[in-house]
Amino acid sequence: MIKNEKNISIAVIKRLPKYYRYLGYLLDKDIKKTSSKELANIMGITASQVRQDLNNFGCFGQQGYGYDVVSLYIEIKKILGIDSIQNMIIIGFGNMGKALASYSNFEKRGFNIIGIFEKNPNFFNIKIRNIQIFDIKYLEDFCTQNKIDIAILTVPNGSAELVAKMLVKCNVKGIWNFSNMELNIKDSNIFVENIQLTDSLMTLSYKLNQNFVK
Amino acid sequence: MIKNEKNISIAVIKRLPKYYRYLGYLLDKDIKKTSSKELANIMGITASQVRQDLNNFGCFGQQGYGYDVVSLYIEIKKILGIDSIQNMIIIGFGNMGKALASYSNFEKRGFNIIGIFEKNPNFFNIKIRNIQIFDIKYLEDFCTQNKIDIAILTVPNGSAELVAKMLVKCNVKGIWNFSNMELNIKDSNIFVENIQLTDSLMTLSYKLNQNFVK
Repeated sequence: MIKNEKNISIAVIKRLPKYYRYLGYLLDKDIKKTSSKELANIMGITASQVRQDLNNFGCFGQQGYGYDVVSLYIEIKKILGIDSIQNMIIIGFGNMGKALASYSNFEKRGFNIIGIFEKNPNFFNIKIRNIQIFDIKYLEDFCTQNKIDIAILTVPNGSAELVAKMLVKCNVKGIWNFSNMELNIKDSNIFVENIQLTDSLMTLSYKLNQNFVK
Repeated sequence: MIKNEKNISIAVIKRLPKYYRYLGYLLDKDIKKTSSKELANIMGITASQVRQDLNNFGCFGQQGYGYDVVSLYIEIKKILGIDSIQNMIIIGFGNMGKALASYSNFEKRGFNIIGIFEKNPNFFNIKIRNIQIFDIKYLEDFCTQNKIDIAILTVPNGSAELVAKMLVKCNVKGIWNFSNMELNIKDSNIFVENIQLTDSLMTLSYKLNQNFVK
């Protein structure tokens, strides 16, 4: 099992964004406190598991009061590393690259897309939402001049591993992998998070087409 | 645990699209047979688990030969329900709706987007990739006239549950939920698959920002 230095399991980590979203929702509604029971309902886990999850990060609720929404929200924001701006680049300006470049919601969470890289010269120097598209050959230079936290990888499957290896050289910290390839760069220090939209759609399709019992 | 009538766990089901993708990749390379060991390497599970997974669906490898790539590919395609065309609609033409409407790769898997629904009149009757944007008030009529398998839900959080309830009435079979809300429609026969892009990005951010050990 993947663990961090505090020995926190990936399952707990994967729940953090959901806690964060729900706390944001409470804040929007001006609700100032919540309980492990309420959080448990939303998360689909037990109240005891909620307490365990949050204890991992030193967030202890008060007996008879529960959790202070604002401070828990700020704490989780910090843990997720989204209390500061993170620079992202997109590699590949195909359908998915275009779609993600058009999507402005990441910025609300502090994720800024500062460049797009392509090998097709037809796209060079075009701007989308003020983000410039560059020739992929300038990738290394760009990464030297700008601290890049995350590269969004949307190149065709055949190029995914090659580009991933370039990104390792560029000292990018993480790859958000939309390609359908598992990236064989385990020896590097780079973190990879795979996301397969079509897999999610196919899972839904399976449920619709088999006599799946909810 | 969620099970279907064959008692197949959701974990196995979630692996099927990955098997399918990998088999497609082998087919592209004109590779005709594969083994549970090879599949295990790709899937990051044991060979014995691969055999168990595929046995669930009556796909048995032959001792000393392994699996026939073509027939396994066709079988999984059938199980996933992507051997026939499925009609989809998009609800909401904000950033994510636009992005998904622009993304043409779903069609390759037999998922056809046949309409987009919005409440903002500025978008009515516009077409994107030949898909028309309609006033949301025509949703029920449209769904009566066209068999809709999947609705892609990309409306703002505040409207998500209301629209989901409309979709239940429209006899849509499944909702692919991009909103940040858990949909409270458990009593209906509709299937929901949640996908939260920003959660995936925040999980990556966590790994980069904590001293996460791979």
